[in-house]
Amino acid sequence: MKTIADLGEDGLITRLCQDLATSPHVLVGPGDDCAVIDSPDLLTLLKTDAVVSGVHFRPDEDARRVGWKSIARVLSDFAAMGGQPGEFMITIALEKSTPASWVTDLYSGITKCLHQYGGVIVGGETTSLPTGAPALVSISARGTVARDHLVTRSGGKPGEGIFVTGSLGGSITGKHLDFSPRLPEARWLCENFKPTAMMDLSDGLAKDLPRLCKMSQVGFQLQPDQIPLTPGFSLEAALNDGEDYELLFTSSRENLLLQAWPDFFPSLPLTKIGTLTSDPGDQLDGGWDHFGERP
Amino acid sequence: MKTIADLGEDGLITRLCQDLATSPHVLVGPGDDCAVIDSPDLLTLLKTDAVVSGVHFRPDEDARRVGWKSIARVLSDFAAMGGQPGEFMITIALEKSTPASWVTDLYSGITKCLHQYGGVIVGGETTSLPTGAPALVSISARGTVARDHLVTRSGGKPGEGIFVTGSLGGSITGKHLDFSPRLPEARWLCENFKPTAMMDLSDGLAKDLPRLCKMSQVGFQLQPDQIPLTPGFSLEAALNDGEDYELLFTSSRENLLLQAWPDFFPSLPLTKIGTLTSDPGDQLDGGWDHFGERP
Repeated sequence: MKTIADLGEDGLITRLCQDLATSPHVLVGPGDDCAVIDSPDLLTLLKTDAVVSGVHFRPDEDARRVGWKSIARVLSDFAAMGGQPGEFMITIALEKSTPASWVTDLYSGITKCLHQYGGVIVGGETTSLPTGAPALVSISARGTVARDHLVTRSGGKPGEGIFVTGSLGGSITGKHLDFSPRLPEARWLCENFKPTAMMDLSDGLAKDLPRLCKMSQVGFQLQPDQIPLTPGFSLEAALNDGEDYELLFTSSRENLLLQAWPDFFPSLPLTKIGTLTSDPGDQLDGGWDHFGERP
Repeated sequence: MKTIADLGEDGLITRLCQDLATSPHVLVGPGDDCAVIDSPDLLTLLKTDAVVSGVHFRPDEDARRVGWKSIARVLSDFAAMGGQPGEFMITIALEKSTPASWVTDLYSGITKCLHQYGGVIVGGETTSLPTGAPALVSISARGTVARDHLVTRSGGKPGEGIFVTGSLGGSITGKHLDFSPRLPEARWLCENFKPTAMMDLSDGLAKDLPRLCKMSQVGFQLQPDQIPLTPGFSLEAALNDGEDYELLFTSSRENLLLQAWPDFFPSLPLTKIGTLTSDPGDQLDGGWDHFGERP
């Protein structure tokens, strides 16, 4: 009997999505950072995301940090599409013996993050779990994006530069909880140097860049020595740790972009790390072969 | 140390909602069947809901019925606001040893229900749980409702009749899984005899009617001998079993409504079960005292 572990997450999702009905209102369905629904004025973004104790946070973690993370992950997805947060629904599943203070702390982290970046809570669901079951926090949200600001993963073209914000690797030391979703940066980009493709880095550059390139039907050549490393962490960490929650995007306007960026975001590096190529095979062959040659 | 069991679900929700930020776009926030967001044309409905193994379905239940139930519960909430389903996001949290066929069966029930009532899947989330943790299926969805069809829980007026569709009680024998969300019936009502207040019966008439009356700031007088009982079940069951997923609504157009209904829904009873009163105290005193006198 085949289990979901045998299929793997990608295999499972592929199987579940293969026969889904669609609608002319759905501009972007499963597979991008958010779903995009056509609307007369602003496009609608829809997103759902869950964090589980023992998987996404330690069972003894400060619940305020868990609340912040649960919201910021969704904000990061809205940023990745060029959008802005709107309304949030919070589902929490907890064993009955959970201290009430854990839940109020969770909400404190949630509302702090929403206060800083925008968005309001309009509903939710609480459900009890049997003793010993891990806590689960699921966030679903609606956002908006102006039609001419929408950026998906699928618009990258050969020859364009590949860029990342911030530095990569080492999120486990704390950034995976306390990160800043790149909403202001993404908004500035979409208004001034609209990327051709964009996503947020949640599973690590080594997994996420190929996903972007697959959606754009292009390949990539990385410059490993250009990848911005979090101080104290290796290139392997930058590629594989995940949970960086930085923006990964592509653009042909390299010089102007790199020149303008520091005036607006002086404390956040923007780095060109490679180039899109015309051969989708590069993403596995040419692309990753380069890591054998890194300095 | 106070736990969430000490607070109870209503106490917990009250505490979590007390300091929430709001927005002028949010017409209805937490506390009704769905949140309602202002939009230039159709209003937007937002809803999230979760079912957990061992709480909402037996661990050995046919996953197709679990899938149907998980979607139909949300459709029932859209119906209760006079709305129509739009886009759905499916979050599933399962232990890794779950058979892949369980998940495909779950989706089979989900898509069967969406195919029958409308709505498309646009995204989701899968996350693994430690061995032994109960399966959780969380559905979040966006719906729409025409501005002049929106019905909340808060518009009931003294003197109006209280109506229910179908029969109440005994859902545990199967209806709690295989019920028909009352979307066509609610749509017809909103187009022809727009209720002043409406909700779906999920926690039992004894809990849900007082909630509707509290939101409408009215009381109620029930006629217990008029409550439509599922054959083989008692008045207590009709009041307390819950998971009826029938419509509970209020209207002043009693005669015309009861006359027109059977032509459109010949196989589904519509019953007047009582009257709204002007004294909110009735909902505990006058209202429930009647049950001491039932035949």
